[in-house]
Amino acid sequence: MTGILKGMRVVEGSAFVAVPLAGMTLAQMGAEVIRFDRIGGGLDAGRWPLAPSGQSLFWAGLNKGKKSIAVDMSHPEGRELVTRIVTAPGEDAGLFLTNLRVRGWMDYDTLSQHRRDLIMVTLMGDRHGRPQVDYTVNPSLGIPAMTGPADHSDPVAHAMPAWDVAAGHLVVSSLLAAERTRLRTGEGQEVELSLKDVAAATIGHLGMIGDAVVNAQDRPKAGNALYGAYGQDFVCACGRRVMVIGLTKRQWRNLVKATGTEAAMADLATRTGRDLDDEGVRWELRDEITEILRPWFAARRVSDFAAEFDAAGLTWSVFRTVREAVDEDPDLSDANPMFQTLDQPGLGRFPVPGHPAVFSGHVRESPSPAPALGADTEAVLGDVMGLCDAEIAGLFDMGVVQGPEQGARSVL
Amino acid sequence: MTGILKGMRVVEGSAFVAVPLAGMTLAQMGAEVIRFDRIGGGLDAGRWPLAPSGQSLFWAGLNKGKKSIAVDMSHPEGRELVTRIVTAPGEDAGLFLTNLRVRGWMDYDTLSQHRRDLIMVTLMGDRHGRPQVDYTVNPSLGIPAMTGPADHSDPVAHAMPAWDVAAGHLVVSSLLAAERTRLRTGEGQEVELSLKDVAAATIGHLGMIGDAVVNAQDRPKAGNALYGAYGQDFVCACGRRVMVIGLTKRQWRNLVKATGTEAAMADLATRTGRDLDDEGVRWELRDEITEILRPWFAARRVSDFAAEFDAAGLTWSVFRTVREAVDEDPDLSDANPMFQTLDQPGLGRFPVPGHPAVFSGHVRESPSPAPALGADTEAVLGDVMGLCDAEIAGLFDMGVVQGPEQGARSVL
Repeated sequence: MTGILKGMRVVEGSAFVAVPLAGMTLAQMGAEVIRFDRIGGGLDAGRWPLAPSGQSLFWAGLNKGKKSIAVDMSHPEGRELVTRIVTAPGEDAGLFLTNLRVRGWMDYDTLSQHRRDLIMVTLMGDRHGRPQVDYTVNPSLGIPAMTGPADHSDPVAHAMPAWDVAAGHLVVSSLLAAERTRLRTGEGQEVELSLKDVAAATIGHLGMIGDAVVNAQDRPKAGNALYGAYGQDFVCACGRRVMVIGLTKRQWRNLVKATGTEAAMADLATRTGRDLDDEGVRWELRDEITEILRPWFAARRVSDFAAEFDAAGLTWSVFRTVREAVDEDPDLSDANPMFQTLDQPGLGRFPVPGHPAVFSGHVRESPSPAPALGADTEAVLGDVMGLCDAEIAGLFDMGVVQGPEQGARSVL
Repeated sequence: MTGILKGMRVVEGSAFVAVPLAGMTLAQMGAEVIRFDRIGGGLDAGRWPLAPSGQSLFWAGLNKGKKSIAVDMSHPEGRELVTRIVTAPGEDAGLFLTNLRVRGWMDYDTLSQHRRDLIMVTLMGDRHGRPQVDYTVNPSLGIPAMTGPADHSDPVAHAMPAWDVAAGHLVVSSLLAAERTRLRTGEGQEVELSLKDVAAATIGHLGMIGDAVVNAQDRPKAGNALYGAYGQDFVCACGRRVMVIGLTKRQWRNLVKATGTEAAMADLATRTGRDLDDEGVRWELRDEITEILRPWFAARRVSDFAAEFDAAGLTWSVFRTVREAVDEDPDLSDANPMFQTLDQPGLGRFPVPGHPAVFSGHVRESPSPAPALGADTEAVLGDVMGLCDAEIAGLFDMGVVQGPEQGARSVL
């Protein structure tokens, strides 16, 4: 009755968002995830945001619940060590995630000579192996051109690395699918995907490529409006901004009823000869609808209608900054079993999320903090690789590996 | 040598993005995915964008490769039918995905009476079961407040339903994790997650909650700048806009070298007493850096430096609309094995994406189009449920089920 992936061991050589998120998602489902980094830390060791101590809140967030080992991979013994950890025996081991794309010793063909049933998932920038990040993929595929206020001509990039997050979760499901096959056939395999392909596939799945081609048009910017039906933001009398949704017919009718705008909407329908029960008509007439609704919201404080909207089952929300959300929304506090407020040395005290899914057959585990870089070097060398104390001491002394604080190793 | 999940059968009762995307992702990995809808189509049957025929490009995009059955669930026989399909026997069946949250007959406790080892993954709006969509979750958690031009005071919502996509992929990995456990223990389970929890967990993982709490600040809007290091968009002499990245030290040095701005950057470092090799310093001095680089890009066409940037391994891209991307970028064409240009009746001819991952042990399958609503009603009743022709005919005659065209059933 612990994490659903308990017993699985995954090794991760990664940086930035996608692959670290993949490993962390597996760790939060109970897998043992060993992340290796070069001594001193990987490319993302100091990624912003930082805590006042200078430690990376980003790194801590994306490496929760993992084990960390620090290895000098410029040293042949370091490469040998990583090879042995990646390919260590165990029915539920031999699972490797990476976005580092190190050629040669870290290729699948090389690594799988040490374990024939190795499963290795590699995330690339694009399918050609060129470097790409969320910040370059997103502009190249057209999303910023459809984002932002209607009267703003420049593209607006998203602040949330959406493609990285999608790619990270696809790394997880690809790994699990490959492991499922290995359980049945005994065969490992190499899995490759790219950040750009993830983004390109997704915009295709959402109908955006078809729209561009068959309608020979680009989706226009429409501010915060919900595309294709009705949904709009309004500023209320208290100064707060709300988002209200009329995507389904039921949502739409509830919104009209709750705002008492039935007569005005009927008048709009008569005047235009259009049926507002058609979601596309609501989209086409969104500005007229918004003009009808705007005075209603402008005359009311959020507190005037919040309870009524909830009782009527409306789909709506209040715009918040992250700070406001943490202050005001119990869903971002320990009132939500997904969160636990942790005191983390060097970081501070704040709510830390676990895995979003609740599995009825498993107790929901509290989130574990991220390790210090190299915190598990010694333990992994002993427990996973079965090295004796003298061998471990030799590796530390040669500088092939490092612990969390070079001077403070426990037994050596 | 076909899809990696070949043999798995998943039943999906869903609408909109997340759960349909989950089912489609499984279908594109080879699973048999049966989506049931009410007669006439579910809530998303007409979701924009539409083809000129009025058919939904969105629906077609998110339901590729599935089987479709249309059932009147207001009819007791229809509910019985769905129950039997969801709980049909088979070692690799008994897997159900939904975001419909129908109480009573579609509860896990009720369904699992018909199959004790049922695995059911339910995506809710929020953890309280309230309705939420990407368009409401996103504003409530603070992302729009940090998106958009620095001088734009209003929040800017993303146009890509990032949380829906993340949630859909978490539905996939949660299902695979639960099925992995069932293979070992024989036990099914209920899995619940919510769109809002997915978003809240993600902003936590990215360090945004920690930043808000321990630094008592909200991340500012910074236009299209890469947060926390250097990355910026520039308009070139040809009018095209590019994004260039200096996230890692190597990217940064390559960018400075390629633009010949070493002296100006050294001068900036001297003038400010800051070290531009520190990514956080590049973020803090981003405006000064941008002023140095802007004339370089303004004086050049993209074609003047594209090959040189690629050869130097720079991380960069050109801003495009979706149409421009389809026209200009071979990665969105059949030159990319992930895509296949299909002629789809009622939709038109355009590149359709398959699954982004390539599994070395399995041939990459071409994407299959979405079914017409009810296209597989008859076949599923026969093949999955084992009904005889007379029973099937009875269900059609009672109006409990419907085929793709009510008058055009083949054998009845």
